[in-house]
Amino acid sequence: MSLVFAVPLLATFILTVLIGPKFIPFLHRLKFGQTVRDEGPESHKKKNGTPTMGGLIFLSAMTIVSLFYIKDYPETIYVLTLTLGFGFIGFLDDFIKVVRKNSTGLRAYQKMALQLAVTSFFIYYTDKVLGLDLSMKIPFMEGKYIDLGFFNVILVYFVVIGTDTGTNFTDGIDGLCTSVTAVIAGFFAMASFTLEQGGVMPVSMALLGGLMGFLVFNAYPAKIFMGDTGALALGGYVAACAYIMHLQLFLLIIGLIYVIEVASVMIQVSYFKLTHGKRVFKMTPIHHHFELSGWSETKVVAVFTIITIIGCAFALEGIW
Amino acid sequence: MSLVFAVPLLATFILTVLIGPKFIPFLHRLKFGQTVRDEGPESHKKKNGTPTMGGLIFLSAMTIVSLFYIKDYPETIYVLTLTLGFGFIGFLDDFIKVVRKNSTGLRAYQKMALQLAVTSFFIYYTDKVLGLDLSMKIPFMEGKYIDLGFFNVILVYFVVIGTDTGTNFTDGIDGLCTSVTAVIAGFFAMASFTLEQGGVMPVSMALLGGLMGFLVFNAYPAKIFMGDTGALALGGYVAACAYIMHLQLFLLIIGLIYVIEVASVMIQVSYFKLTHGKRVFKMTPIHHHFELSGWSETKVVAVFTIITIIGCAFALEGIW
Repeated sequence: MSLVFAVPLLATFILTVLIGPKFIPFLHRLKFGQTVRDEGPESHKKKNGTPTMGGLIFLSAMTIVSLFYIKDYPETIYVLTLTLGFGFIGFLDDFIKVVRKNSTGLRAYQKMALQLAVTSFFIYYTDKVLGLDLSMKIPFMEGKYIDLGFFNVILVYFVVIGTDTGTNFTDGIDGLCTSVTAVIAGFFAMASFTLEQGGVMPVSMALLGGLMGFLVFNAYPAKIFMGDTGALALGGYVAACAYIMHLQLFLLIIGLIYVIEVASVMIQVSYFKLTHGKRVFKMTPIHHHFELSGWSETKVVAVFTIITIIGCAFALEGIW
Repeated sequence: MSLVFAVPLLATFILTVLIGPKFIPFLHRLKFGQTVRDEGPESHKKKNGTPTMGGLIFLSAMTIVSLFYIKDYPETIYVLTLTLGFGFIGFLDDFIKVVRKNSTGLRAYQKMALQLAVTSFFIYYTDKVLGLDLSMKIPFMEGKYIDLGFFNVILVYFVVIGTDTGTNFTDGIDGLCTSVTAVIAGFFAMASFTLEQGGVMPVSMALLGGLMGFLVFNAYPAKIFMGDTGALALGGYVAACAYIMHLQLFLLIIGLIYVIEVASVMIQVSYFKLTHGKRVFKMTPIHHHFELSGWSETKVVAVFTIITIIGCAFALEGIW
């Protein structure tokens, strides 16, 4: 194996750390400060003015470094395309937030329409261009796959948009989405090695380096947020890697935090409607519940990251 | 592969998190608070009274969990024996510190004599019991080894005691030695998988889980320190894993932080003597230099851990 593992990691890390300090003041000048959601915890109000769209930092570094691997690893284009496709939706969202100076961004139906469009392109690309079938490897059962035929296609919408919603909801505490997704990128790099489907290894190590570099600015107390630009791109990356290696079912294990974050919102909203005003959690997405229960932001990040490491260890074993 | 990867990780993590809250007040009652070294930074004075010997928490959890894997992975005994052997030296050191209520502990010559004794046992065990030869795999050159014949034996003393001094010096900031060594334990587990020398995988995953669990209490602001009990044990673990997989030369890459910490002290002391009183660093081991240069403890830990992750990525690639 030539240097496709550590070199992209180091290159993107260095690039991100170099781009960051140029980019953050630039965003500040453009007044791309995030208007923190009104419905977040009170303590988050102080985060008003922290620039967002930081995802552009690690996405640009990742893209530059990955380009060197396209020739030997054509799957890189697939992963990059979907990462940047979803990232573009997030960018629109962030951009509108900044222009409008409110925290709404794209309207829900606009965001959904764009996500459906990119996902449809995703399916077209996966099926027609790569010729990948959509069957799903079963964890801990070597060589066994589920194939739902046409329902696979419908499932793609749930899996891809679900993952993207997961990364989006997870991005609500300094360094949380960055740390959790960094672990998952490391998982995909290792999975790619053990499955001998080397295709996503360089792009994954590049993303891991980018996220580690971004953490320098994004860890508590954050100097910049990744914004929807970053969070939606990461969802696209995770979904693309899962499909290329038939690991859709594994998303429930490696992306357990995403699942819990989305589930917490769904439970909260449903229960609130059913009971006409009662709540299950103090606040959702669930990381705010823990914050309001007295956990520090860094403790939430540590615990959620550890859960992801343990989940990824199980998933890695479930592949072998 | 049966469940030898994620299960020990999860089991030790849970065990450590459960043992911790029982053990910390117990150490407090016994007045096993650390008397922080007089020569540390001023800001560390507030750490006086934080209990030490916390290494006992993850070492006991790791030992209990590893015992279940001895039958299938006899190498576990070798790694455990050397880990606990060096841990015992550290325990003596910590114990004397507490009893004497000063920060000296074992005298330098006593510590060295004990380390030489355990290392001699280490060589005997490696050679006579395991029948391992002491040749060293060359990074990035597949299938190539260096064999220095009799000098291998002399080298063991430098490698083992050097590693142990490295973990000992690295342990000076909340969570630093824990985080750096957790990454290295993960590296050895992966190396064990890729080299198909499965022997150290369960014990390494057990240690990784133990260190992740310990980080819950040991991360900034630390409620407990690992003490020499923990730090010397970790050095023994690292050296044992390196020898069992012929990865001695890789220690310079994966243990770069240990190397830098030890080198900084050697440079400082030599320069001080040569120039009759001038210093290269503000304070050594080098993590104190960065602290006094204005870095927060968490920043030092983050940067040193990231360097270790990148080093381990290169080392993993250097094995393949």
